[in-house]
Amino acid sequence: MRASDNNVQADFSTPLLDAIATPVDVKALPEEALPQLAQEIRARMVAVVSKTGGHLAPSLGVVELTLALCRVFDFPSDKLIWDVGHQTYAWKMLTGRNARMETLRRFGGVRGFPFPGESPYDTAVGGHAGVALATALGFAAARDARGGNENVIAVVGDASLTNGVSLEALNAVCHTTERLILVVNDNGMSISRNVGAFARLFARRLTGFRYNRIRAAAAAAGHRLRLNRLKAFYRGFKSIVKSILLRNRSVIFEDLGLRYIGPIDGHNIPALCDALRAAASGQGPVVLHIDTVKGKGYPPAEHNPSKWHGVGPWAAEAKPTAKSDATTWSEAFGAVLCAQAERDSSIEVITAAMRDGTGLTDFFRRFPAQAHDVGICEEYSIAFAAGLAAAGRRPVVALYSTFAQRAVDNLMHDVCLPNLPVVLCLDRAGVVGADGPTHHGLYDLAMLRALPNLEIRVPATRAALEAALVEALTRRGPTVIRYPRGYVPEGPAPRLEGSTPGAPVILALGHTVFWAEPIAKSLGLALLPVESVKPLPDFIRGLGARPLITLEDAAASGGFGSAIAEIHRGPLLILGWPDRFVPQGTEAELRAACGLDTAGLRMRIAAFVGGLPGGSHG
Amino acid sequence: MRASDNNVQADFSTPLLDAIATPVDVKALPEEALPQLAQEIRARMVAVVSKTGGHLAPSLGVVELTLALCRVFDFPSDKLIWDVGHQTYAWKMLTGRNARMETLRRFGGVRGFPFPGESPYDTAVGGHAGVALATALGFAAARDARGGNENVIAVVGDASLTNGVSLEALNAVCHTTERLILVVNDNGMSISRNVGAFARLFARRLTGFRYNRIRAAAAAAGHRLRLNRLKAFYRGFKSIVKSILLRNRSVIFEDLGLRYIGPIDGHNIPALCDALRAAASGQGPVVLHIDTVKGKGYPPAEHNPSKWHGVGPWAAEAKPTAKSDATTWSEAFGAVLCAQAERDSSIEVITAAMRDGTGLTDFFRRFPAQAHDVGICEEYSIAFAAGLAAAGRRPVVALYSTFAQRAVDNLMHDVCLPNLPVVLCLDRAGVVGADGPTHHGLYDLAMLRALPNLEIRVPATRAALEAALVEALTRRGPTVIRYPRGYVPEGPAPRLEGSTPGAPVILALGHTVFWAEPIAKSLGLALLPVESVKPLPDFIRGLGARPLITLEDAAASGGFGSAIAEIHRGPLLILGWPDRFVPQGTEAELRAACGLDTAGLRMRIAAFVGGLPGGSHG
Repeated sequence: MRASDNNVQADFSTPLLDAIATPVDVKALPEEALPQLAQEIRARMVAVVSKTGGHLAPSLGVVELTLALCRVFDFPSDKLIWDVGHQTYAWKMLTGRNARMETLRRFGGVRGFPFPGESPYDTAVGGHAGVALATALGFAAARDARGGNENVIAVVGDASLTNGVSLEALNAVCHTTERLILVVNDNGMSISRNVGAFARLFARRLTGFRYNRIRAAAAAAGHRLRLNRLKAFYRGFKSIVKSILLRNRSVIFEDLGLRYIGPIDGHNIPALCDALRAAASGQGPVVLHIDTVKGKGYPPAEHNPSKWHGVGPWAAEAKPTAKSDATTWSEAFGAVLCAQAERDSSIEVITAAMRDGTGLTDFFRRFPAQAHDVGICEEYSIAFAAGLAAAGRRPVVALYSTFAQRAVDNLMHDVCLPNLPVVLCLDRAGVVGADGPTHHGLYDLAMLRALPNLEIRVPATRAALEAALVEALTRRGPTVIRYPRGYVPEGPAPRLEGSTPGAPVILALGHTVFWAEPIAKSLGLALLPVESVKPLPDFIRGLGARPLITLEDAAASGGFGSAIAEIHRGPLLILGWPDRFVPQGTEAELRAACGLDTAGLRMRIAAFVGGLPGGSHG
Repeated sequence: MRASDNNVQADFSTPLLDAIATPVDVKALPEEALPQLAQEIRARMVAVVSKTGGHLAPSLGVVELTLALCRVFDFPSDKLIWDVGHQTYAWKMLTGRNARMETLRRFGGVRGFPFPGESPYDTAVGGHAGVALATALGFAAARDARGGNENVIAVVGDASLTNGVSLEALNAVCHTTERLILVVNDNGMSISRNVGAFARLFARRLTGFRYNRIRAAAAAAGHRLRLNRLKAFYRGFKSIVKSILLRNRSVIFEDLGLRYIGPIDGHNIPALCDALRAAASGQGPVVLHIDTVKGKGYPPAEHNPSKWHGVGPWAAEAKPTAKSDATTWSEAFGAVLCAQAERDSSIEVITAAMRDGTGLTDFFRRFPAQAHDVGICEEYSIAFAAGLAAAGRRPVVALYSTFAQRAVDNLMHDVCLPNLPVVLCLDRAGVVGADGPTHHGLYDLAMLRALPNLEIRVPATRAALEAALVEALTRRGPTVIRYPRGYVPEGPAPRLEGSTPGAPVILALGHTVFWAEPIAKSLGLALLPVESVKPLPDFIRGLGARPLITLEDAAASGGFGSAIAEIHRGPLLILGWPDRFVPQGTEAELRAACGLDTAGLRMRIAAFVGGLPGGSHG
């Protein structure tokens, strides 16, 4: 690593990190060594991410927390569940994976999120926000049933707490277990910023400081009173303070049945260790509220944590391809939506904490009154859109395909059943690359295709995306438009006749028409782009019993190929992602690994064509 | 109606209800007439439901609220959204549907839930709990954007408030609109059970001040008891959030940005009208907390509101079929689970407020330490199960198929990706009858079939259900078992060879083998039961290119027939529910309407067979 790149000053004369194989080694260090270890971790993290890209700012923020957890608890017997695991780079370094960190987010490498198959220290999958507390309660209930004694700790960001699953889990803590530690990592940020009343309630800097000072004074006074009296006094006192300082987080957590400790400086290791020990030793479930700085220790990330939340590689040796002038699908979506909003003031845009990622930054700036960031609340985003649509507005909800899985019921019950004109745009539909299996958008077509009244568009080009959105905004019923990560093709979708009449036809869904083009050319097959899965284009029935090959950037089971299979009885080859979870890697690596790269497709298609009655039709 | 049947005394000398065509007519009545109108509504409601069956207790509880809403607001310009619309019978009677109430929940009749297509007074679909506030915020935001002036009112039960979508919506209220009325209908009940006397005490009728006094007293008392005993008391809380939202309601609601009015006696019409006017006239979003008695005015329902939550007809003239001694699928599931739990203490059972409906009453009584009712929190139920499974327990989650749509993402991310041995039992999979399109379980196969690692069983008989559950409890990965409403066939599944070698084969999924049996017999077709959708049984590939007919009690698109279509290139007829929402009615009526009754199936299958090359193969 090059210190000049990352502005982190570590003492290389006595390197500590390389000697850490497990958390036991962290325990063995003298306390005075920990700040240096933290520095080394940050330096290593910045060096790695400068080459691999990744979620830098979140992981920088919890270095001291991770060290303190390792000092206080005994992993992996104690169980640690990270909510939104993109903050776990330090955790990975300290649990035996430091030497492999250069492979972070790469094909076959260390995953960007906790994954139970990767390490015994990773207890649960951590890709979708909001589930850690629920999963931790499962671990705690299992321990209680077994009569075990291990600690169960969930680390949850403040933004994840407002997700419906988190709130359902908070609801359940008290009647599920008497022993659970919830660490609220409060950096005042979601990926961009937090929204909502619960966020405010959970968040810091409102009245917490004053409240805790007053409470500390009361606690000190309590030492001079009998315990019973103190308790009674304290309860009464709390309600008085509560009525004065209405928005204090300790009140809400204590009302929810959790003992409250905090706020603690999340970058002070001794304070964190003390607080964690207090949390582990007391009675009842407990919330430990820590304040952290997202991007801590790397000035560019501290200064602009949103930009540095997830970044591409920037190191010179990473040789990133020159920044393209090309437009991404997300940008094209945002641009056409802005153009539409200029002539149609009934458009309302909704995102679930993915304003930048879905290309809506400009829309939010230009049309703030018509723009809604609802936080990590995908279910709500659709139910809210249903109300808007029923009241005559034109809502467009932009979600990542994988996160939209949360809103399938709302789409069915609130939107499709009353046949409301909600437009749901699924960004990152298809494989997404380095974020891996939690983030690939492969199951949307299978999950949504059966819903009555819904139409599903899969544009292949920028013009088709624009046309699909314009058309969806005029429909009387609901429309889903799905498109992948990456750059949107500008040109027209290729369309090939095939070298012989009656030649097998490749039906390529959306952007996969560009995957299929070289194969169709070289094998002399017909190639027809398909840009709607529901309804299917009329021309398909006109193909009769001709041999068909379907191709889609989605699970092969249940999606477009399946829809064709339902109506087509001639020879058929369905090509899409296999029935197993697709790992992380570049799109090229993943396609090659699953037989969807040019070579793989050519081989499979040639074999299909060669096996047809009468030999090659090509 | 016969007053002796329902214990309601109305004054028939001056009938009022028959003269009510719209809420305007309610406004025109003198205030003194309203109690009589309420009585007439209750008498009518009891008389109707005694013949049709339905959700009696919830609707009895909100008669005065409905009248007060009609007195104060101007519907349909003002917008009223009911959460879980089974409380809307009075609403339907007062909005032009009284004369048709005998058709309630019947094929072609008045729906058991609000439905926009049924009346301009019904603003949103109200079948799944938890979405009313979110939808209401959509209506409010649309009004604000338009510069409109109508009131938007959501009526939400206390049990629905703990659902994740409700909590996400509560989070959003204050940054979405300054004008919204949330009526919290607090009857201290979910669908089934009381939350415990102590919890009820806190859940209702206590102001925050009194609550805090009692809590302080309880804390003091705790020092005179063993701490564990006090803890046990607290663990009895079914829903801590519910208690918090309601017991400390003014604090929590005001913290969430809502003005608080209440608690109001929900059966006192003048008080309700005053409170509603105050709610409509003040500044900012407001919560109006009302106390109601579930089943109010009909003593049997007041006495046992769980039993009378949803009931079948009981009037003599309804001539209900004699209660069968047969076992329901739910009962069979509960029985086999109890049998398994006797020999396997690692089994943990989870329900989302459907303990009775899913056949788990006995399990909860016999194995309370292994039984979890998480409230209306389907997402949480699966994430919690994932934690239990990862920690070595054997969780079995029982949900209705339609409600499980909420947990699709958790099933994918928390369960299938780490390949955890969670068993998800989908009750009410298939058409459910009178509850209609919000409750039919038709989309589960399409939504779940694409998920890697998941196996999906569809038993046809009681023995098969038992075997599927026993097997699922030994698998290393996740299993879904789906089964319908109604009685479980005891006998073996029929299996027919067909009258000629090579005859078309009917592949009937699960219990539909009994639908297919008479047709296969009369047409001389082979009939093979299929009891696993994923993986498909091996014998299917052995059928080669024989003509196949698939039959399933699920949407024809994307499900079992689709799975067969993906692998079978011979002639194929896919039979299942059509690509439109299936209305309410008896199973027989719905099957007839969709060509899935014996006559319809025979006709469609005969046409398919007749159209095969070489004519009838039968």
